[in-house]
Amino acid sequence: MRPPKAALVCVGSELLAGQINTHQAWLSTRLRRAGFEMLGEESVLDDVAAIAAAMRRALAKADAVIVCGGLGPTFDDLTREAAARALKRTLSFKPALWREILKRFARYRMKVPEQNKRQAMVVGGAQVLENSNGSAPGQRLRAAGRTLLLLPGPPSEMYPMFEAVLPTLVRDHARGVHAAAFSVRLSGVPESIADERLDPVRARWPQARFTILASGGEVSFHAALTARSATAARAARERLRREILDAVGEFAHGEGDETLEFALGARLKRKGLTLAVAESCTGGLMGGRLTAVAGSSAYFLGGVISYANSVKTKSLGVPSKLLARFGAVSAECAAAMARGARKSIGADMGAAITGVAGPDGGTKEKPVGLVFVAVSGPGRAEAVKRLEINGPRDAVRGRAVTAALRLAFDAVR
Amino acid sequence: MRPPKAALVCVGSELLAGQINTHQAWLSTRLRRAGFEMLGEESVLDDVAAIAAAMRRALAKADAVIVCGGLGPTFDDLTREAAARALKRTLSFKPALWREILKRFARYRMKVPEQNKRQAMVVGGAQVLENSNGSAPGQRLRAAGRTLLLLPGPPSEMYPMFEAVLPTLVRDHARGVHAAAFSVRLSGVPESIADERLDPVRARWPQARFTILASGGEVSFHAALTARSATAARAARERLRREILDAVGEFAHGEGDETLEFALGARLKRKGLTLAVAESCTGGLMGGRLTAVAGSSAYFLGGVISYANSVKTKSLGVPSKLLARFGAVSAECAAAMARGARKSIGADMGAAITGVAGPDGGTKEKPVGLVFVAVSGPGRAEAVKRLEINGPRDAVRGRAVTAALRLAFDAVR
Repeated sequence: MRPPKAALVCVGSELLAGQINTHQAWLSTRLRRAGFEMLGEESVLDDVAAIAAAMRRALAKADAVIVCGGLGPTFDDLTREAAARALKRTLSFKPALWREILKRFARYRMKVPEQNKRQAMVVGGAQVLENSNGSAPGQRLRAAGRTLLLLPGPPSEMYPMFEAVLPTLVRDHARGVHAAAFSVRLSGVPESIADERLDPVRARWPQARFTILASGGEVSFHAALTARSATAARAARERLRREILDAVGEFAHGEGDETLEFALGARLKRKGLTLAVAESCTGGLMGGRLTAVAGSSAYFLGGVISYANSVKTKSLGVPSKLLARFGAVSAECAAAMARGARKSIGADMGAAITGVAGPDGGTKEKPVGLVFVAVSGPGRAEAVKRLEINGPRDAVRGRAVTAALRLAFDAVR
Repeated sequence: MRPPKAALVCVGSELLAGQINTHQAWLSTRLRRAGFEMLGEESVLDDVAAIAAAMRRALAKADAVIVCGGLGPTFDDLTREAAARALKRTLSFKPALWREILKRFARYRMKVPEQNKRQAMVVGGAQVLENSNGSAPGQRLRAAGRTLLLLPGPPSEMYPMFEAVLPTLVRDHARGVHAAAFSVRLSGVPESIADERLDPVRARWPQARFTILASGGEVSFHAALTARSATAARAARERLRREILDAVGEFAHGEGDETLEFALGARLKRKGLTLAVAESCTGGLMGGRLTAVAGSSAYFLGGVISYANSVKTKSLGVPSKLLARFGAVSAECAAAMARGARKSIGADMGAAITGVAGPDGGTKEKPVGLVFVAVSGPGRAEAVKRLEINGPRDAVRGRAVTAALRLAFDAVR
């Protein structure tokens, strides 16, 4: 069963001037899950000829081409013109659409700049896609059985518009192609070990496509295949899922979009436990990740950023003697910080991180990358883990947070 | 003076499976600063034909083509083969290079897998680029006056290799093209206001290329032009710099790569002041950003993550009466948190954030996006700022941190 193919065109000079392209990762993930095979991505300048050429190249190979950006009201928003040129179609002003845009602005009591009329220009044959979060409507075009989808650039407008049009995309290109996708998210395991364990699964499923990604101490493994029927797809997914979890289940913290902080939060909530943190070299990043989860106030109380040793003794009650004897970067200090966080904040559990993030501050005994993470609670349980992390400062800090969250996750088992 | 043109090819199926492409932004920034004009970027699958086609397309339009990724030792590392195919050159095993790779592994007392021999395959006519941070050597190829540069994918290997080869790239393509680039970083100002103020500067410099980027509450503005001589370039840069700072200098916190947390740290260090934080809805992100700066322990002591109200009263001394009367999301609470952080941590200054990050928890009086940031100190100084931030949870939190850091930056003036 041949999966339908998709390609991306990201429009905007800012993407070639230092802005990070997050659309590529977001759209790739969603399209693959819906059964599409990703062929490629191009980032192009705000230039009609360049955008049109990229659209034509993408349409020559892909069933569905998703274009993001360039639908704003200014002179350098040229995606509409480029689409008309690429498909050799007209571009015309739609008074009804213009009235819709005016109505939206009126609702927010805003004056409409005359230049916004550009946003009511529609490519011949396009279906206009409503934008409930901004002024730029999207457009869906069909040509020779393929789709050219024009979406706005801002994520808050693009994400919901894409989700709304995805069923149509699936109907047009992936009908009869029953997609089965499964992703598992792992922590506490190096990519190479996970990769090796998953080798036999890959060997047993030559018809599936697999990807393994490692980032910030987490590993995610994706499997996707297409089947002839919905029943066959469901059955294949179930078998794949079982085989993958048999291979690496002990390291799994979640499936699909379930981050480690989400998975830990769900366990805490289920057990009715609260958590506090104590952070030295990570300076608050663990608390930042825990509170990235909406609703985390149900189990996360807060914590202490004990960057200076004086804060470790004063706010966390780490004994000065302990610091003098073992140093701030030690298993003993990490454990004392975890206990201190738990006690000073009044939580059921404490999680702590202390280490040498670098690039300076390393010694022979305590080199850059040496990190201790510790968990205190629930009850009398205690755990400490020693890590030696290779990489620059941000990598050391990111992986330290993942290790501490994983230690806490295992403690609530 | 025509600037030389550059294009990027990013190799790796993971880039079309959810991995965020950070090379594009990093390389674009550096190439532009060195006087190159960026033409475009393509992300391609690990497929020889696809990589070779992207290389040929890029070489047809750009003077310098930078290829990242696909130089590893495994079967899906195909950039070497693709370059040989794109340039119609040989690919041959270099025993001397293989001995170098063996030596490197020996230094780390590691066994060398046989498959790593692939990394000693060199495209005909290539200059081999040493990799001091990994096993994959880079390759620099010249063809018809153009450059095809093959760099490894991991940032820790790619960044230093690119920096080392950049002078050669400039010599080959930008000789006699004297680049003048200036970037200013702004905070505490909406992009639209900065943009409007900079309009006259753009109008006076039709020969320059400008980009304005907004992200997480910060705005950066880049100007680049090329001149006939180094003296002319220096003079133009100086004039541009003065005009830009005349227009938006009051919002500037830094130039080039100077982040707001770096700029605040530099001011604190110069004045010999220490800082503590108190964070509610940001859960530690402000501390995380402050400690992203290497050496921040010189001025940052730590802080309290007071996510729950009990932590605000207990660890920060915010009066329960104040919370009952004004609520946790109030100017009064923010100010009390800043004072509490300063006092409990023993710092010269305290910075605090409290707000409704959403998506839930908003009310009519305290809607999602309502945030108060406050600074206490140095001395008797106090400042509070009220913000209404549009956007999803992560945008609210990111901009809240920027606003708090900016308030602290202004307080140390």
